[in-house]
Amino acid sequence: MTRPADLDIPDITDLHLAHARIDSQIRQTPVLNDPGLDEALACRLYCKCENLQRTGAFKFRGASNAIACLGEADRRGDVATHSSGNHGAALALAARLDGRRSHIVMPENSSPMKVEAVRGYGGKVHFCAPSNAARSAALEELVNAGMIPVHPYDDPAIIAGQGTAALELEQAVPSLEMLITPVGGGGLISGTAIAARNRGLSVYGAEPAGAADTAASLERGSIVDDFHPETIADGLRAIVGKRNFEVIRSAVTTVLLVSDDDIRAAMELVWRHLRLLIEPSSATVFAAIRNNPDLFAGRKIGAIISGGNVDPATWLELVQAEGGSRDLQ
Amino acid sequence: MTRPADLDIPDITDLHLAHARIDSQIRQTPVLNDPGLDEALACRLYCKCENLQRTGAFKFRGASNAIACLGEADRRGDVATHSSGNHGAALALAARLDGRRSHIVMPENSSPMKVEAVRGYGGKVHFCAPSNAARSAALEELVNAGMIPVHPYDDPAIIAGQGTAALELEQAVPSLEMLITPVGGGGLISGTAIAARNRGLSVYGAEPAGAADTAASLERGSIVDDFHPETIADGLRAIVGKRNFEVIRSAVTTVLLVSDDDIRAAMELVWRHLRLLIEPSSATVFAAIRNNPDLFAGRKIGAIISGGNVDPATWLELVQAEGGSRDLQ
Repeated sequence: MTRPADLDIPDITDLHLAHARIDSQIRQTPVLNDPGLDEALACRLYCKCENLQRTGAFKFRGASNAIACLGEADRRGDVATHSSGNHGAALALAARLDGRRSHIVMPENSSPMKVEAVRGYGGKVHFCAPSNAARSAALEELVNAGMIPVHPYDDPAIIAGQGTAALELEQAVPSLEMLITPVGGGGLISGTAIAARNRGLSVYGAEPAGAADTAASLERGSIVDDFHPETIADGLRAIVGKRNFEVIRSAVTTVLLVSDDDIRAAMELVWRHLRLLIEPSSATVFAAIRNNPDLFAGRKIGAIISGGNVDPATWLELVQAEGGSRDLQ
Repeated sequence: MTRPADLDIPDITDLHLAHARIDSQIRQTPVLNDPGLDEALACRLYCKCENLQRTGAFKFRGASNAIACLGEADRRGDVATHSSGNHGAALALAARLDGRRSHIVMPENSSPMKVEAVRGYGGKVHFCAPSNAARSAALEELVNAGMIPVHPYDDPAIIAGQGTAALELEQAVPSLEMLITPVGGGGLISGTAIAARNRGLSVYGAEPAGAADTAASLERGSIVDDFHPETIADGLRAIVGKRNFEVIRSAVTTVLLVSDDDIRAAMELVWRHLRLLIEPSSATVFAAIRNNPDLFAGRKIGAIISGGNVDPATWLELVQAEGGSRDLQ
């Protein structure tokens, strides 16, 4: 698949440059393997814990790289974005560490925990109505006032930054056969696919069935942008970006769909074996592996745990809402 | 302080031997530093995440070493212990990996999560009444039937195993000035003190005010064994062991006391900054650092997070029970 000439898509060199730029700022997150989890999933699984990244998600990698690239281009000034979640907090911290202010457009119904996180990192929150139109308008207003927009995923610097998690994972566990990540707007999986291409690893995506715009777009051959997501995986409701889609359709083997109940069960599975509370979005990869033994049984797999920003009360509600005889107490 | 001649207490060589024995079995746990947590505690803190150790606690180190030492001494057979918590699960897994059966005496009121963990690792649970007398009697019966007892902390192989966490921490962060760990029966802190002595680091302990038998023992100069613990830190209710006490009084600078409310607040602090759910026992060290800026402000400190075996519902109840305007939702 050739790449449309008008899209600037990073390559492996851009990923290595990104890593060099952000290395002193990000946390080199641990890679965990657990024999009990391996037994439960019938494979050998190496989990890159971006839930333990600064700001609680891989998003800090991309945001840090985007801010550093602005500095290299001598573009000073405040930055702005829209985000109901992890990108906002990540951009706020990355901006603050670079001596910039940040403005984050968030829907009025954002979780208080995420609003608090953005503010805690020094970001200024601008509330808007919870619609695409309202948040675009609010962001446009900020840009018109001179702020530099930083898109959550459809941006070469963001994609290159997100790809650095896979670079570290490949280095930590050199003999992996495949990688798997969640799919939302596509920043993480496209960066991962660029990292993996160089080593000949196959890459899989996991997407909630209720936010399956990427799977639908792959089937149609072009982006389905009128999708109305309905899933507990709040980090994966975005519509796949243009650059992201180009990388995914050329370099990702398959995007696998999982149900919200699969996600709930996988959250509990990860807690049971790794003692980590992970976001619903992150649990999609474990659900996809569990659902597809034909693809994954016996294989040596690298999985990226994308984030851990779920408060314990919400985690508990989500896990307990699953059918069955769960008894965590 | 000279060591009583009849106590076999490990030295730094024993710790290195222990590490070589267990290295292929344990997880080399990550060390996390977080600038936000550093700011909150006004120091530079490097957290050794034994909550992410196999079985969810540092106890797997000691249990693995104890089992390996039995093998070296050609002592085959089932092992037995009493434990309401992490040592039982750790011994069960270590025994199973060595092809042995394990028998764990647990009080009837043990948390279902901990009973399930022991059974999940293949241990046979023997319930007893929740009293010291009942559990000693139950263990004695097993030993009389030929099983090999493995004490949770007052055992040279256990102490040497627990000390390997500090060895790894010192190696990961070479310029530490001090180490701090929780104090229960004293396995972890005595192993840590032996590891630290060699490098000239000072060692601090954190003990719940409601289970301050070690602090009282230090004050009196001999073990106070009629202490009735009352604290939410369920892993720290044991009375300090003889070997452990000898090491603590010769090599630990101070044992600092913290209240249960301090512990609750520290659990929330660690979640907020590190996105880790930690046991009340583990939170004692953060509470002690927060309470004692005279000792810790500006210092470069290694802290061992001892365990993460608290179910999310219990974590939430504990944290929300604290006074004040906490709002996690």
